[in-house]
Amino acid sequence: MSPKITTELLKQLRQVMKNPKYVQEPVQAYIVPSGDAHQSEYIAPCDCRRAFISGFDGSAGTAIVTEQHAAMWTDGRYFLQAAHQMDNNWTLMKMGLKDTPTQEDWLVSVLPEGSKVGVDPFIIPADQWKRMSKALRSAGHDLVPVKENLIDTIWTDCPQRPCKPLIMLDLSYTGVSWRDKITALRAKMAERKVMWFVVTALDEVAWLFNLRGSDVEYNPVFFAYAVIGMNTIRLFIDGDRMMDPAVREHLQLDSTLEPEFKIQVMPYGSILSELQAVGAGLSPKEKVWLSDKASYALTEAIPKAYRYLTPYTPICIAKAVKNASETEGMRRAHIKDAVALCELFNWLEKEVPKGTVTEIIAADKAEEFRSQQKEFVELSFATISSTGPNGAIIHYKPVPETNRTLSVNEIYLLDSGAQYKDGTTDVTRTMHFGTPSAYEKECFTYVLKGHIAVSAAIFPNGTKGHLLDSFARSALWDCGLDYLHGTGHGVGSFLNVHEGPCGISYKTFADEPLEAGMIVSDEPGYYEDGSFGIRIENVVLVIPAETKYNFKNRGSLTFEPLTLVPIQTKMIDVNLLTQKECNWVNDYHQKCREVVGAELERQGRREALRWLIRETEPLVRVQ
Amino acid sequence: MSPKITTELLKQLRQVMKNPKYVQEPVQAYIVPSGDAHQSEYIAPCDCRRAFISGFDGSAGTAIVTEQHAAMWTDGRYFLQAAHQMDNNWTLMKMGLKDTPTQEDWLVSVLPEGSKVGVDPFIIPADQWKRMSKALRSAGHDLVPVKENLIDTIWTDCPQRPCKPLIMLDLSYTGVSWRDKITALRAKMAERKVMWFVVTALDEVAWLFNLRGSDVEYNPVFFAYAVIGMNTIRLFIDGDRMMDPAVREHLQLDSTLEPEFKIQVMPYGSILSELQAVGAGLSPKEKVWLSDKASYALTEAIPKAYRYLTPYTPICIAKAVKNASETEGMRRAHIKDAVALCELFNWLEKEVPKGTVTEIIAADKAEEFRSQQKEFVELSFATISSTGPNGAIIHYKPVPETNRTLSVNEIYLLDSGAQYKDGTTDVTRTMHFGTPSAYEKECFTYVLKGHIAVSAAIFPNGTKGHLLDSFARSALWDCGLDYLHGTGHGVGSFLNVHEGPCGISYKTFADEPLEAGMIVSDEPGYYEDGSFGIRIENVVLVIPAETKYNFKNRGSLTFEPLTLVPIQTKMIDVNLLTQKECNWVNDYHQKCREVVGAELERQGRREALRWLIRETEPLVRVQ
Repeated sequence: MSPKITTELLKQLRQVMKNPKYVQEPVQAYIVPSGDAHQSEYIAPCDCRRAFISGFDGSAGTAIVTEQHAAMWTDGRYFLQAAHQMDNNWTLMKMGLKDTPTQEDWLVSVLPEGSKVGVDPFIIPADQWKRMSKALRSAGHDLVPVKENLIDTIWTDCPQRPCKPLIMLDLSYTGVSWRDKITALRAKMAERKVMWFVVTALDEVAWLFNLRGSDVEYNPVFFAYAVIGMNTIRLFIDGDRMMDPAVREHLQLDSTLEPEFKIQVMPYGSILSELQAVGAGLSPKEKVWLSDKASYALTEAIPKAYRYLTPYTPICIAKAVKNASETEGMRRAHIKDAVALCELFNWLEKEVPKGTVTEIIAADKAEEFRSQQKEFVELSFATISSTGPNGAIIHYKPVPETNRTLSVNEIYLLDSGAQYKDGTTDVTRTMHFGTPSAYEKECFTYVLKGHIAVSAAIFPNGTKGHLLDSFARSALWDCGLDYLHGTGHGVGSFLNVHEGPCGISYKTFADEPLEAGMIVSDEPGYYEDGSFGIRIENVVLVIPAETKYNFKNRGSLTFEPLTLVPIQTKMIDVNLLTQKECNWVNDYHQKCREVVGAELERQGRREALRWLIRETEPLVRVQ
Repeated sequence: MSPKITTELLKQLRQVMKNPKYVQEPVQAYIVPSGDAHQSEYIAPCDCRRAFISGFDGSAGTAIVTEQHAAMWTDGRYFLQAAHQMDNNWTLMKMGLKDTPTQEDWLVSVLPEGSKVGVDPFIIPADQWKRMSKALRSAGHDLVPVKENLIDTIWTDCPQRPCKPLIMLDLSYTGVSWRDKITALRAKMAERKVMWFVVTALDEVAWLFNLRGSDVEYNPVFFAYAVIGMNTIRLFIDGDRMMDPAVREHLQLDSTLEPEFKIQVMPYGSILSELQAVGAGLSPKEKVWLSDKASYALTEAIPKAYRYLTPYTPICIAKAVKNASETEGMRRAHIKDAVALCELFNWLEKEVPKGTVTEIIAADKAEEFRSQQKEFVELSFATISSTGPNGAIIHYKPVPETNRTLSVNEIYLLDSGAQYKDGTTDVTRTMHFGTPSAYEKECFTYVLKGHIAVSAAIFPNGTKGHLLDSFARSALWDCGLDYLHGTGHGVGSFLNVHEGPCGISYKTFADEPLEAGMIVSDEPGYYEDGSFGIRIENVVLVIPAETKYNFKNRGSLTFEPLTLVPIQTKMIDVNLLTQKECNWVNDYHQKCREVVGAELERQGRREALRWLIRETEPLVRVQ
């Protein structure tokens, strides 16, 4: 991977930063955030402005360009990747390390007095705007909205915004109709005494209307906004997608409906003016509910006194708690996904020794096996297929320049997943196709102990996920090892593979308490720069637990793994496990064998079944 | 404990809430926070306004009185105590439970439209004012400052503000002179480009000047403020305390000093006008540094654009990291404290079976033994001496009405500590003087496992204490048990027994990362309402740890117990411990025996020594 040469681009950007055609006054710094106008994590090519200007295309990062400097903030998952992809014009700011300045502190330290810092108001979330604006103002600078996106002015071959056909999900998948979801939302609005709700996140629009799309790779969403009133529904969406008779029927656009369920379809680009009209027409006490992560532009459309902002919307919270139809769908999807991975690992075991399998070939093969499964739609994220030192690049994606050949001498880490019409998967397995070293086994076993500590944790109802993060690290910490990423994220149901409002992370963000029906990942790791990466990831469902004393009827929770793929026993130093941990592995493998074995049998995949049976032989502790 | 009858007082308060003599406009609600003008946790009798109006005298709680209602917010430590101490006029708001409204939400739900909510601007911290003011405003109400404290207007026999003599600490205790502390503070100010620093917390004033006082029971502080400029030092303090020649010499008030170390002494009551004068005289870019927990009144004295607010002041952070002199002092204090407790427990063991020892007698005896130790000053908090069901009242303090007699049939919980001139102690031991039940032993052993999990935890440098909280709960959680308080708090060095900026709690507050030299408590518990309470508390010092891989040179930390008092082995179900946990107990007891044994020997306390030796016999696992 050679870095992108950005000297000329930065020169052009610095010119438009002073060009009165685009800015009222010159800006001394310009911020290029990661997201799109919906604060999406995964974005369409036309929104990859930060990657365009810097070369760094990881999923998280913020670029800031001043007259003299260009700096990139990203987190531990991407330190190596960003360093590889960016040229010398850029300074990498390693978030989470003690000496790394915040964006605000850095700006204050490099800017001349009384500077203006520009940003696209559609791209920056309102809460970030507020924080940064305040910090800059207190240091004598100004954060200013620049309406025309300055990257777009120099991005001559910027691709078009996608506008792909929609997928309708019926009740057997969603469990709840879009009308019932609207009714539940309006009840939440009434509870908080708000009259309007603005749906800005793409996955929230998709979930609310039981629709899916493919405008953004890996995330089955489509570009749209919605504004829900107590008696009106406005859907802002482009293209001829609303001409599709199936969509019209799904949304009952041509039916005689009660007026409060009649959907008004409007152009995507009209959201700002429509919202401004809503804002202008509000009578006292008519509040408008927005996520505090909605864009500054949309937030500003509502006069301050009328805004009701919350970190998580009621849709976000409702979406996180999966109902029985969704949970059953997720189970089915994970069984199919396990079938594909058993096939893959069986295949790799035979092929790797021949020296012909590269990271890209392995990733393609994984996709091929997955695509053979029913209701497969697409991958749920770019496959991380990495061997040896590439495994230490936490969100690595193989490209021809970095593509290594798998061998019997290196650890192979595969973090991959798919979108099936009944669910979303995300699984990481770390394998060795030869003989792992004692050190590799030691590290793998600590990671496994952490994985089990979270997966088997029992905790009272209402516990927030971040309180479980240290369980995943304890075994690593005891030996002076750690990993620089969170332990888990929420997972959507045929939706985004990363979703809020819950997760398991050392970062204390405002996560919502875990409750039965929520689905998160459990994925501790260990990374040795230049040598190898280890990660063990299951998607797990929050379920009620049985405890001796049940927290005085407060209720107990634990996790049930939905992912059912064997964890390579060859990598385990059994003597580092407690008997309880050993039993966990054996019980887990027993379940893999039974559930996935039956499906392999049904699909007539005999060779993969034999592989599964061998890989799920019980561990025996010799101590 | 019978509740305080507050009907008449509430009537009077509701009258002054409408009296134009005190309020510009009638207030429909009046907030009575817990603290004093320094946001102290422990307060002088004249500042116990919340206890006066409600009867509830726990260390944390906020009262709000409206025309119709009176409500009290407090946390899990005080649910039972508050319920006992308050009459039927009051509604108890149990913080931390899911259905308990916040003060703001409750106010919004009960107040008539467009209400005014009053509060004393000297008592409410600026950050709380801001949050509450915003929430009330967005619901159409107003938070208003009421200059005259309304409780004081009806509190006819309010005691005088204390003004006791000062104690000087020399370098052998503090390790650093006050001049060097001022110099270090000014360096921090220069780093942040602030010209003034306002010291508002009493323990910060005391620490900065190496002085101690006794204006507030248990906390060796004195009423004072300080304003530090780059070239000036102003100390606001009342009484003839500055007439004491020893104090004058300590502060070099009569020496020919460089002007920047010359202390100007001013009346305590002049802080507001002096600060307003500072505020009025600021030239652009002259910032004033305040804690964001400083009172609203003082914060408002500085125009908004000139304020530099941080959650923790540089003094708070410097004070938390103990230097070698302070650490050695803390060690000495804890050895003396252990001597006193060995004497006490030996005495209790003999006396309890006679049925003559009450909770109050036991507490007094503990104080008597402590007061025999060198450099004893006073207790560090009100002794929690509780037996049987009283043990479940987390911050119980025995009073004649509740005073139970210790017996061989009930668990006894003693949470106590002292101020010695060389250090502050805080220790909890839970004992049984007869035969504990299997269930009591089971619960005790889970609490012990949690205590050990924190105490023996190894974690990377820079870890925040809240990430360790779940370690203390894991063994309890596995059986469906929990406790409704944090696991640890910072401890001062001959200063407040509770201090910031670090701690170990499930509440995600902005705690600072742990570093070597910090001192916190480790005190998980379990409480069975109506039956018993269990808590095991040591004060522990953060120290560097030895790990196999040392976090790639980031450094490893762990804890060293400073408290050296045996943990009653009779209460332990050894078979619930792992071998590692068993070894921890045995190593700990070995250290108690060696270190405290030598001191008991030196002090000629033979009987207590024999008790110590018996109580520190190694555990043996039979599994």
